[in-house]
Amino acid sequence: MAAALRGPGGRFRWRTWAAAAAAAAAGGVRGAARSAAGRQDYDLLVIGGGSGGLACAKEAAQLGKKVAVVDYVEPSPQGTRWGLGGTCVNVGCIPKKLMHQAALLGGMIQDAPHYGWAIQPVLHDWRTMAEAVQNHVKSLNWGHRVQLQDRKVKYFNIKACFVNEHTVCGVAKDGKETLLSAEHIVIATGGRPRYPTHIEGALEYGITSDDIFWLKESPGKTLVVGASYVALECAGFLTGLGLDTTVMIRSIPLRGFDQQMSSLVTEYMASQGTRFLRGCTPSRVRRLPDGQLQVTWEDLTSGKEDMGTFNTVLWATGRIPETRSLNLEKAGVNINPNSQKILVDAQETTSIPHIYAIGDVAEGRPELTPTAIMAGKLLAQRLCGQSSDVMDYDNVPTTVFTPLEYGCVGLSEEEAVARHGEEHVEVYHAYYKPLEFTVAERDASQCYIKMVCLRKPPQLVLGLHFLGPNAGEVTQGFALGIKCGASYVQVMRTVGIHPTCAEEVAKLRISKRSGLDPTVTGC
Amino acid sequence: MAAALRGPGGRFRWRTWAAAAAAAAAGGVRGAARSAAGRQDYDLLVIGGGSGGLACAKEAAQLGKKVAVVDYVEPSPQGTRWGLGGTCVNVGCIPKKLMHQAALLGGMIQDAPHYGWAIQPVLHDWRTMAEAVQNHVKSLNWGHRVQLQDRKVKYFNIKACFVNEHTVCGVAKDGKETLLSAEHIVIATGGRPRYPTHIEGALEYGITSDDIFWLKESPGKTLVVGASYVALECAGFLTGLGLDTTVMIRSIPLRGFDQQMSSLVTEYMASQGTRFLRGCTPSRVRRLPDGQLQVTWEDLTSGKEDMGTFNTVLWATGRIPETRSLNLEKAGVNINPNSQKILVDAQETTSIPHIYAIGDVAEGRPELTPTAIMAGKLLAQRLCGQSSDVMDYDNVPTTVFTPLEYGCVGLSEEEAVARHGEEHVEVYHAYYKPLEFTVAERDASQCYIKMVCLRKPPQLVLGLHFLGPNAGEVTQGFALGIKCGASYVQVMRTVGIHPTCAEEVAKLRISKRSGLDPTVTGC
Repeated sequence: MAAALRGPGGRFRWRTWAAAAAAAAAGGVRGAARSAAGRQDYDLLVIGGGSGGLACAKEAAQLGKKVAVVDYVEPSPQGTRWGLGGTCVNVGCIPKKLMHQAALLGGMIQDAPHYGWAIQPVLHDWRTMAEAVQNHVKSLNWGHRVQLQDRKVKYFNIKACFVNEHTVCGVAKDGKETLLSAEHIVIATGGRPRYPTHIEGALEYGITSDDIFWLKESPGKTLVVGASYVALECAGFLTGLGLDTTVMIRSIPLRGFDQQMSSLVTEYMASQGTRFLRGCTPSRVRRLPDGQLQVTWEDLTSGKEDMGTFNTVLWATGRIPETRSLNLEKAGVNINPNSQKILVDAQETTSIPHIYAIGDVAEGRPELTPTAIMAGKLLAQRLCGQSSDVMDYDNVPTTVFTPLEYGCVGLSEEEAVARHGEEHVEVYHAYYKPLEFTVAERDASQCYIKMVCLRKPPQLVLGLHFLGPNAGEVTQGFALGIKCGASYVQVMRTVGIHPTCAEEVAKLRISKRSGLDPTVTGC
Repeated sequence: MAAALRGPGGRFRWRTWAAAAAAAAAGGVRGAARSAAGRQDYDLLVIGGGSGGLACAKEAAQLGKKVAVVDYVEPSPQGTRWGLGGTCVNVGCIPKKLMHQAALLGGMIQDAPHYGWAIQPVLHDWRTMAEAVQNHVKSLNWGHRVQLQDRKVKYFNIKACFVNEHTVCGVAKDGKETLLSAEHIVIATGGRPRYPTHIEGALEYGITSDDIFWLKESPGKTLVVGASYVALECAGFLTGLGLDTTVMIRSIPLRGFDQQMSSLVTEYMASQGTRFLRGCTPSRVRRLPDGQLQVTWEDLTSGKEDMGTFNTVLWATGRIPETRSLNLEKAGVNINPNSQKILVDAQETTSIPHIYAIGDVAEGRPELTPTAIMAGKLLAQRLCGQSSDVMDYDNVPTTVFTPLEYGCVGLSEEEAVARHGEEHVEVYHAYYKPLEFTVAERDASQCYIKMVCLRKPPQLVLGLHFLGPNAGEVTQGFALGIKCGASYVQVMRTVGIHPTCAEEVAKLRISKRSGLDPTVTGC
């Protein structure tokens, strides 16, 4: 797991904060490209103030290095802008989970009368929720600023591009330019939603996940275009908040995830009222005189055109890495021309030995906050000579926060079969009913668990897939188990915690191969 | 983990159902002590239809054995009675968790306006909740009956006592006696709440956990006497349902659990409105003319008497194993005269080689449903020659479903220090804030995680303690990790699932020894 560091890993030369300030003052612009002594302004410059960049910067600063972070949020085409912290904090995980929670509370309110709370149903008020969520996000922006200050990381609110392989030029909102140089540079600029600009009206009338969390008014009747987890999560909470929500999917939902689980995710959403238009692709968006958006789409099976009106169209059709404006060619940093992502090795090093890329902007990395954070911290530790550990991108757990949450770690059934052959794979599974669903008279048809194992005893666990309430909370610990090489035998010897949903994992007795009914009955 | 079976483990002699019926018909009473051929009526007789007994019976039947279960619920002193399934189903885990959920929903209703649901607060209606919970329990009773039938396990609703080491006499409600004999007998009679009969009025006016879940009317203002998890869980949900609730504790709460965690559990409860009378012990209960109960207690510190009136007094002062009426001496089964529990070895065998005891009635076993179930299944498998695995009672995870849930697995900090010495133990800890608490403006002062490790690298994890929402769901997977020998290093290499509470475990960086502030800040 911990491979020796074969990257550059040169030690920083030490430099005082005061000396840097003096050098900067000596230069004609704010900051100076290089000091007279030929040294750089900073030991480490991080481009991008998101999860990965901030983690890397703070860790390096804590280890005594002189660090700067440059961050700049280009407003979305609809004009949405936000503060420090990157996608996760501002337009990703955090507001998403909070709106998901708001939607879950809608379900709790429906449960409550069964449990003796005779509350009257009410309509959801978007403004109240949005303001609370946005206030929380702003407090996090502030927290990140404070943390950088506390650790003496210099923060520049500028849009950076490379001048050469040690120098970056940053442009502020007012057009002022700043030159910054550093021994080591980490690119952590992440990505932004992709607009399907070939579709008439897409850019003009559509919004993306960069906007939805910052809307002051309810989006109303919404068309979500896309099949990614972003699409499904947004559609899920919009439905849960009582909005008429349609998801338009061209091919398959949750590509890359286990497809049986994916089907159950959308099946549950459909049962909760989300509409699905499958095998369809939009061709144009127009604004009607009454302000509504008229969307025209093609049914790819029949070839026919169809049409619908919505208040909001949300594009969730993928993300583009933020590499275009970096002038990477000036630094000699190579990208994959197809994905536009930066090519990196196991040490996160780009084609230039002292330039690194972490998080969503790096080729082949999971687009997840915790991996970016861990990669950033480990990179800082290696750069500071504190450790030679490289990030292990295997068995990264994740959770899709759809109305019924889907947590997974390790291989999907398809991947396991592809790698090991069907005859060498044993899949244990169960349909279970969360205890809390009983009194609430909730349907549990999609509450399902699947554990993918090698068939050969002791049946190493290759992957775990959990669909049900609190899937993220359930999955985390099992990720540790799988990290520790858990076998099916060990899972079966683990005593359950009763009554929980998680204990169903430790009770998975029925293999798919047996053909037996996997429905859990009784206690 | 899998020790070879050194117990009796003789194979059953086979016998048809019809032959047994014929033998029974030949006898003068329903059933027959022994058939003419000197064989027993059953391969396996299980006394007690609770979690352990039913699991054992069903497993043995599934493996082809002829099995009977005898079960009889002696009504509580207050006259509460229930059906098949034992404590967990009827007067334990299941109704407890459902009433806990009802209480949690009370909290969600308070959260909801922050998230945009402007619902009006209402008072909780006990009758509605109780009826729903009781209906669910009755459906489980029925389910257990059906499962026994499906697996051809013969069920007798009789109160059993030993006649000799192979024979049991059962008395039905109507006084009818049945003699049943078996090759192997499993005692799984569990336990019942202990009444402090030395206290005037205790038996007459008090109820226990055998009654609380079956009350048709709200218990009203309640005094819970005791410091066990049963006491705290009951007091927790009563408070959450809006009832004026007081807990009277003689010495320390949650004895046997990590005491730092225990303090946080009660601290949170107090913050939610549960009153605590510490260092007090009741001396008498009287009924006032208005029907209220007047409780007199002694403050053990000051020696002074004090008094209060309540609608309900709930004794949660421990449990007594159900061994007294079994006539164990007739079979030669030995008990611990202090605990009254049955002495067993690692194979669950009592002093008589073909008689076993599992679950709460057995000496030294955790009083937990999942351990009883697993022990029962493994015992059946061994008796049927299917396996030689014995139950591993180490690292059994559990969760206390107090308002803030407390999940734990492995050693408490005190135990770890006692076993390994303080200098060899490293404790990592964190105070964290669940994301959902932010918008809801909930206080997270008691949300705390502690991981107890060996100090020597790679720092084997000895115990994990998690206090927060969904603690049971969080803890289960980590129990697998610990089963697999997880080290602190492996926990740190496990990628978090963001945003969850469980990910905080994978982010535990601060050791107690460091003296650093363990409060998690930011994202």
